Amino acid sequence: MAVVVQNIFRADPAVIERLAGAGVATVHEAQGRTGLLQSHLRPIQQGARIAGSAVTISAPPGDNWMLHVAIEQVRPGDILVLSPTSPCEDGYFGDLLATSAQARGCRGLVIEAGVRDVADLRAMGFYVWSKAVFAQGTVKETLGSVNVPIVCGGARIEAGDVIVADDDGICVVPSAKAAEVADKADARIALEEAKRVRLAAGELGLDIYDMRERLAEKGLKYV
Amino acid sequence: MAVVVQNIFRADPAVIERLAGAGVATVHEAQGRTGLLQSHLRPIQQGARIAGSAVTISAPPGDNWMLHVAIEQVRPGDILVLSPTSPCEDGYFGDLLATSAQARGCRGLVIEAGVRDVADLRAMGFYVWSKAVFAQGTVKETLGSVNVPIVCGGARIEAGDVIVADDDGICVVPSAKAAEVADKADARIALEEAKRVRLAAGELGLDIYDMRERLAEKGLKYV
Amino acid sequence: MAVVVQNIFRADPAVIERLAGAGVATVHEAQGRTGLLQSHLRPIQQGARIAGSAVTISAPPGDNWMLHVAIEQVRPGDILVLSPTSPCEDGYFGDLLATSAQARGCRGLVIEAGVRDVADLRAMGFYVWSKAVFAQGTVKETLGSVNVPIVCGGARIEAGDVIVADDDGICVVPSAKAAEVADKADARIALEEAKRVRLAAGELGLDIYDMRERLAEKGLKYV
Amino acid sequence: MAVVVQNIFRADPAVIERLAGAGVATVHEAQGRTGLLQSHLRPIQQGARIAGSAVTISAPPGDNWMLHVAIEQVRPGDILVLSPTSPCEDGYFGDLLATSAQARGCRGLVIEAGVRDVADLRAMGFYVWSKAVFAQGTVKETLGSVNVPIVCGGARIEAGDVIVADDDGICVVPSAKAAEVADKADARIALEEAKRVRLAAGELGLDIYDMRERLAEKGLKYV
Amino acid sequence: MAVVVQNIFRADPAVIERLAGAGVATVHEAQGRTGLLQSHLRPIQQGARIAGSAVTISAPPGDNWMLHVAIEQVRPGDILVLSPTSPCEDGYFGDLLATSAQARGCRGLVIEAGVRDVADLRAMGFYVWSKAVFAQGTVKETLGSVNVPIVCGGARIEAGDVIVADDDGICVVPSAKAAEVADKADARIALEEAKRVRLAAGELGLDIYDMRERLAEKGLKYV
Amino acid sequence: MAVVVQNIFRADPAVIERLAGAGVATVHEAQGRTGLLQSHLRPIQQGARIAGSAVTISAPPGDNWMLHVAIEQVRPGDILVLSPTSPCEDGYFGDLLATSAQARGCRGLVIEAGVRDVADLRAMGFYVWSKAVFAQGTVKETLGSVNVPIVCGGARIEAGDVIVADDDGICVVPSAKAAEVADKADARIALEEAKRVRLAAGELGLDIYDMRERLAEKGLKYV
Repeated sequence: MAVVVQNIFRADPAVIERLAGAGVATVHEAQGRTGLLQSHLRPIQQGARIAGSAVTISAPPGDNWMLHVAIEQVRPGDILVLSPTSPCEDGYFGDLLATSAQARGCRGLVIEAGVRDVADLRAMGFYVWSKAVFAQGTVKETLGSVNVPIVCGGARIEAGDVIVADDDGICVVPSAKAAEVADKADARIALEEAKRVRLAAGELGLDIYDMRERLAEKGLKYV
Repeated sequence: MAVVVQNIFRADPAVIERLAGAGVATVHEAQGRTGLLQSHLRPIQQGARIAGSAVTISAPPGDNWMLHVAIEQVRPGDILVLSPTSPCEDGYFGDLLATSAQARGCRGLVIEAGVRDVADLRAMGFYVWSKAVFAQGTVKETLGSVNVPIVCGGARIEAGDVIVADDDGICVVPSAKAAEVADKADARIALEEAKRVRLAAGELGLDIYDMRERLAEKGLKYV
Repeated sequence: MAVVVQNIFRADPAVIERLAGAGVATVHEAQGRTGLLQSHLRPIQQGARIAGSAVTISAPPGDNWMLHVAIEQVRPGDILVLSPTSPCEDGYFGDLLATSAQARGCRGLVIEAGVRDVADLRAMGFYVWSKAVFAQGTVKETLGSVNVPIVCGGARIEAGDVIVADDDGICVVPSAKAAEVADKADARIALEEAKRVRLAAGELGLDIYDMRERLAEKGLKYV
Repeated sequence: MAVVVQNIFRADPAVIERLAGAGVATVHEAQGRTGLLQSHLRPIQQGARIAGSAVTISAPPGDNWMLHVAIEQVRPGDILVLSPTSPCEDGYFGDLLATSAQARGCRGLVIEAGVRDVADLRAMGFYVWSKAVFAQGTVKETLGSVNVPIVCGGARIEAGDVIVADDDGICVVPSAKAAEVADKADARIALEEAKRVRLAAGELGLDIYDMRERLAEKGLKYV
Repeated sequence: MAVVVQNIFRADPAVIERLAGAGVATVHEAQGRTGLLQSHLRPIQQGARIAGSAVTISAPPGDNWMLHVAIEQVRPGDILVLSPTSPCEDGYFGDLLATSAQARGCRGLVIEAGVRDVADLRAMGFYVWSKAVFAQGTVKETLGSVNVPIVCGGARIEAGDVIVADDDGICVVPSAKAAEVADKADARIALEEAKRVRLAAGELGLDIYDMRERLAEKGLKYV
Repeated sequence: MAVVVQNIFRADPAVIERLAGAGVATVHEAQGRTGLLQSHLRPIQQGARIAGSAVTISAPPGDNWMLHVAIEQVRPGDILVLSPTSPCEDGYFGDLLATSAQARGCRGLVIEAGVRDVADLRAMGFYVWSKAVFAQGTVKETLGSVNVPIVCGGARIEAGDVIVADDDGICVVPSAKAAEVADKADARIALEEAKRVRLAAGELGLDIYDMRERLAEKGLKYV
């Protein structure tokens, strides 16, 4: 029952970079409004925007043993994603684990639980999205699994899926669809840029998007 | 049922500026401790302090169509205030709408729902107080109303009411009382300044406010 | 029933400084994982790390009278700790009280309720950990007590206990155990420093902590 | 500022009875999906369905003095509706106040705060919808107002508005629209009854409401 | 993107009945402590214990159109399971839909959103586990999907999985494992029955489970 | 650090019975409005009113081992009170432990975590007040302590303190004060009975408590 899957499929690093550049809101739209994690997972820092392949962890509540196991599986550019098997806000992760993860090239952590040493994590530039900041320690008694499918923030995540995270939250993109989603995201960005110029010049969305007629049809009254 | 009220009464811009200068806590006190919105509406930025006339929006859950309609009604210095008709944390507002609103002179947004593109909004200096940060997109299918009375954060807000918002939260001042409240706020500031000097010098509130006798009467014991 | 205890036992200032240097997560571990306050008490600023002797306040809901009484009891280096007798998020504390507290040498405030004027508090460098930011005013009608045992954030706090607070949260150390805990914290820091060097060099926790054998015994499978 | 409005407009008792008969969900639909209070206000009993004219109370947090004042204003068939001026879950109301209210013909209480003695209230058949059950006592120190407009559960309520409450929650109907809403509710009930018979016989909503074509147009695929 | 999967694999009805008999807590243990839905999904009734095959629904927020589509896919003994694509507590389901579902043999509903007409649902014996009770109506504008994999209450659910629900909550069992889990559940029940007799006679778990030695080894002190 | 205190002081059983008879709201008032546990601890049954001596348990999150240890310490009439050392809602307690506890004469359980098998617990008449109903299992790996002081629901509880619990919640009375509080509670009941008769007859609290003059002095206006 407790397994570590060692070979996982990762998307093309160049595609991952493009998804990082697009950011969560655009990737979520480009993917047909799917894959968003719930809003209670918040960044502990401001201004970070990253993407990477998920190394997933299913861990018992209050037990961070599997993080040590997972770090060995990390390749440069990966993001750790941990979900406990019952609700927990203990501090699974702090500056020592971040030092270890960072030494392996890990880009960040998404965790449906707590973290601690957040001042150190910010100073190190190790990016975290978590449910809580809480110094409560954990034990190392019970096994979990690494690189199995998990549910985190209400979204199903498979090992190797691309995680995109920024100040807006987190979005997951299946690794097999990453290139297609990156293309759609780039197309959206181009489209939005043209609209941004018109809107900044004072044109109204009502006119750019031809909304007036449909609003009238639906019965909107100006008084 | 779906209406856009086009002519609304706005308070004097000079009065609005004075209210912005006083800030939420002082305005709330000056107004007899009324008009405060609930504390779950939080700023996405730090250090902003603004005031403006409310352009109100009553919108269906998960539908941001009326924001496009409302932006046409904005005059320079206004603040958009949106409340959904049932609880929702979808991201109604992002960088494109902010670009459009800012081009019309809009000062900010108060929203009982979510926003997205928050890194962009911070970079643009477009100020927002919201219930959530969430990238979930919305549709444009169902009408709502603009510049009708709404309840937002537990407070009733009429179009044209003055919204004061800063790091402490948000307070609403009826447009007809704005001048009177600004006067009272200025008086409070003057009074507080005198007290601040005495307190900073080490005098105790117990003495400045003559509390010792009343405390003893009520039965406070020093042991 | 309403009392002010005037003489409280405080730990050695040098010990308190060492606890501040260690920070919440380390102190909590050094103390056997006890004394942590709940995670809903959050800092209003970022990057502060302080320790001080608790001046405790038990106050009625929506009534900040006892804060004035408590400030007289503050000695340089103390931290105010307030818990209401029923749940409340009103703004008990703002810039005037902070000016007074700071003039007495107070280092900060931990409060199971709300504060206001947070932009001013940040500018003054007066540190606060609170349940809410809320401008709602309070009255001065009903007595409470100062320097009695209270429960704050789910932890029991006696007057004079050492409060350690930083971006991770808050931990309380009984004054009589402060020196012992500081020694243990220093020992942990030395130990962690050695590990950090090895982890930063890319060694794995699995090897440094000799975990591989025990993981296999428990049945972890690599696939 | 602290006032008791003595003469309020109440809807026709026969209309109020019809609204009670229709229940919250039907009245809310009949009224164009407006007037619903938030779902955190829950019944302390099961199976009650009432309607009555609102006697509104704006009360300070933790202070139930105005309930005594309000009870004098109650006429047979009225419902007390209390909202505190800042968030509070103290037990404003228990068996003694219920005895007094019931003696005046009061039908129930809607309260954005706590109640106590709930076993007694259930035994008495005094119906309550509240935010919390909490035995914490209140004081009688600060004035509020009776029969002024309040916001309760996120809905604006004026004195005399019809409150409809059952296991689904609470809906408010402006007194001037009560008759019109009752007519629409009765029409809905008749319409729904016909549909219920067909649905109970196994006909599908897809056919009764002619949905198949529109679903296909929108692109629904059966696989 | 919007699909209705018409042929789904269901577990053997006899196995499903055995899982219903075992109940949520036992099934969850028998399955290795997996498959439990989060505790915020609560029953609207007391004393129900059911199991059935999941007909899953992924629906837009505030839009219950897909429920009509899903009911056509229900076979006797099935349970509807709905999860919205963004957080929502609107009342998707009431007495008319329940009448229709019941006519098709549906046993109940699990919904990560709201329901209404709960007094009627209880009277009909139609069982529901939901996130909220809320009369807010929904629209029929946007497509979703039926019998696709969803995440509900933090658990991944595939169409045809066995849902077990009672007063303790809800547990999902993959259809392919249902027989194996039922066997393990029956074995647990037999084992527990023997223990229950001994415990009821006053024997201690400390002795029945031979805990005393291990407690002493771990260092438990009796004082 | 992990200890079981075997000899604890219990209040006189006759006094405990009188406190049970008075109920939570009256005992809380009689004790000067202290000792109430937070309102998130809710009964799983309706209509129970009990009192008993606390056997306290400090347990690790997700680990119910100490419940087995504690049950050996139970004497007839006791109530188990468990608080985890970090927030947890796992199901620590179900029908087997209840069978064992009941066999020892235990009257009920107060737990700042979850319970399961609630239908069985209700059927057995074993009373529980908990933070959650959740079937998630626990392990037996880490020690805790029995009959040490704990904080539960925000209140400090010592072993042997009298726990009073009913539909209103839970109140703790220090064992040494139990007799005095019972006397005051009885006096309150007598006093309230007289008032209830007058209120039931239609007299107003405004008159019985002589409030009219003080209301006028404070400035209440009738309009």
